[in-house]
Amino acid sequence: MPEGPSLAELGETALLQRLAVHAPPEQWNDDAALLPPLQGERWVISTDALVEGVHFSAATTPAWSVGWRAAAANLSDLAAMGCQRGAGFTVAVAAPGATPVSWLEQVYAGMGSALAQFGGQLLGGDCSRSDQIMLSITAIGAVNPTQLIRRDGGRCGDWLVVSGAHGLSGLGLRLLQAAAGQQELTPELQQLEPSLQEAAIRAHQEPQPRFDAVAALHASRPQGSPWRLGGTDSSDGLRRSLELLGDACGCRAELDPDQLPLPAGAPRCAAMQQLCLDGGEDFELVLALPEPWAQALLAELPGARRIGQLGACSGPPCWADTKNPLPGGRGFEHFS
Amino acid sequence: MPEGPSLAELGETALLQRLAVHAPPEQWNDDAALLPPLQGERWVISTDALVEGVHFSAATTPAWSVGWRAAAANLSDLAAMGCQRGAGFTVAVAAPGATPVSWLEQVYAGMGSALAQFGGQLLGGDCSRSDQIMLSITAIGAVNPTQLIRRDGGRCGDWLVVSGAHGLSGLGLRLLQAAAGQQELTPELQQLEPSLQEAAIRAHQEPQPRFDAVAALHASRPQGSPWRLGGTDSSDGLRRSLELLGDACGCRAELDPDQLPLPAGAPRCAAMQQLCLDGGEDFELVLALPEPWAQALLAELPGARRIGQLGACSGPPCWADTKNPLPGGRGFEHFS
Repeated sequence: MPEGPSLAELGETALLQRLAVHAPPEQWNDDAALLPPLQGERWVISTDALVEGVHFSAATTPAWSVGWRAAAANLSDLAAMGCQRGAGFTVAVAAPGATPVSWLEQVYAGMGSALAQFGGQLLGGDCSRSDQIMLSITAIGAVNPTQLIRRDGGRCGDWLVVSGAHGLSGLGLRLLQAAAGQQELTPELQQLEPSLQEAAIRAHQEPQPRFDAVAALHASRPQGSPWRLGGTDSSDGLRRSLELLGDACGCRAELDPDQLPLPAGAPRCAAMQQLCLDGGEDFELVLALPEPWAQALLAELPGARRIGQLGACSGPPCWADTKNPLPGGRGFEHFS
Repeated sequence: MPEGPSLAELGETALLQRLAVHAPPEQWNDDAALLPPLQGERWVISTDALVEGVHFSAATTPAWSVGWRAAAANLSDLAAMGCQRGAGFTVAVAAPGATPVSWLEQVYAGMGSALAQFGGQLLGGDCSRSDQIMLSITAIGAVNPTQLIRRDGGRCGDWLVVSGAHGLSGLGLRLLQAAAGQQELTPELQQLEPSLQEAAIRAHQEPQPRFDAVAALHASRPQGSPWRLGGTDSSDGLRRSLELLGDACGCRAELDPDQLPLPAGAPRCAAMQQLCLDGGEDFELVLALPEPWAQALLAELPGARRIGQLGACSGPPCWADTKNPLPGGRGFEHFS
């Protein structure tokens, strides 16, 4: 093996910057890539991989959910680009030879259920042997290029709106890990209402790509207003989404401390706040859009919330009142 | 984990049949999948995965070649569908955190070189941590639907034509493994001409998707003849390609024993014959087409060879004279 820093030493962001020299400029700046325009629409294509022990484990994720989650993660990228449904996807699966067939069949059943609900067909794929189970999905959807959602569409003064609560999926994972004896819960998280526990586990095992939020964007846009907004999905955590949105348009996300989008009924403890910011895999849309459109969207889409605004300065996300940086560490780091 | 047979016990073919219930009928019957027609052309999309220790190893494959081979394998699937170039691809890479960045950069350089030569852009992708390196590429190309190559297009009496020799890539791998002390060569394979050795190693490390063969098909089609042929690529070995072609059109591939497409200068020993039939990763086109077109193609495309014909009976590939089945075992089996 050649010398030099390891992936862990370099970190994912710098790695992607280095690798981006092999792609056309700006090709990697969004959640999914555009193919050339065709008959007024453009194909959108997105690839996402799930690795056993990293993205899922047998203790916390039944096979069906592995498939559903792999599909939902990719479909969420399409929604984050403005697609209103999926068109299809291909799957590369690598697994040890000793893997039960029924396990893999359940994985595909989970993917098939997601396709049936959100649109699209299983188009093909590849199987291979490996020591560790890996699923790589490439999803394709079509979008009208005048109705795209890009990260860099935000402007200073835009309202920041999320399509739903954050931290629920991360909470569900912690609950499952605690039930499997892999983790201890803080006292606050040991006393959750059963309905919240169920919702959290469902959010982790069966996340929903928010195509409905894209439809609500269409329905709520004020007459005469241009289609101008910034957006991404929160697959790697709310904090990371806000970093991406802010960086893409040279602004800073300013969060209202009273409007942190905690799940309904969740305690306002430090652990829950951390899950809200960095739990990841909520697959909500995180949007920056003009106030009138944001107001109309909040009225149109139940569960959507204003969490703050894009401020004039550039920099990492901060609290709106003090301008202090958000507490806690970095978002999800793939190679650590 | 649920009960039932393992992937190894079931075998890849039966596994794919089981999984195909989740895909539209016939969607998995070709080397790549079609997306809906657009402006006269259809998008073709293909996914292929390479796993460390299965498809490549540090001993036999430099990082650049890992990238080139991953790209070439996918592009070859596009050529096998009738595309004349690539349009682009997405890449999912999973690797241990300790992997040197420079190794991965060289992988991407190899992919980029293949794209530069054969057309297309790196459209996006995903990175993840894993214990074992895996690359999954999804390649996209466009094809005029009246000029598609499908496996089921062959007819009894068609000539079987390959775009080049088979066994060279497998020979290259054996030579590299022998040099690394991983394998012993048979006496015949220890005495190869240096030029053949170099060609074999190049074929293994830098295989060529045969877009030029598709162009030759276009150039050689006799005036007034319909675009009617069957075809696939020989990624999993010549024998496997012939099985696929025969099965798809209900015929049997009959090989002329004097026309086994051995590499020029290779010994006619049992080991070389086995590599020719089952070595795999030659990425040549294996075609079934009417005699006049086949004759014209042979004149148009240097290195192309007639190897036999499609016989009226169905069944596994056999020798044309005796109708005995080809010697030796099954083709490449992914989970064994």
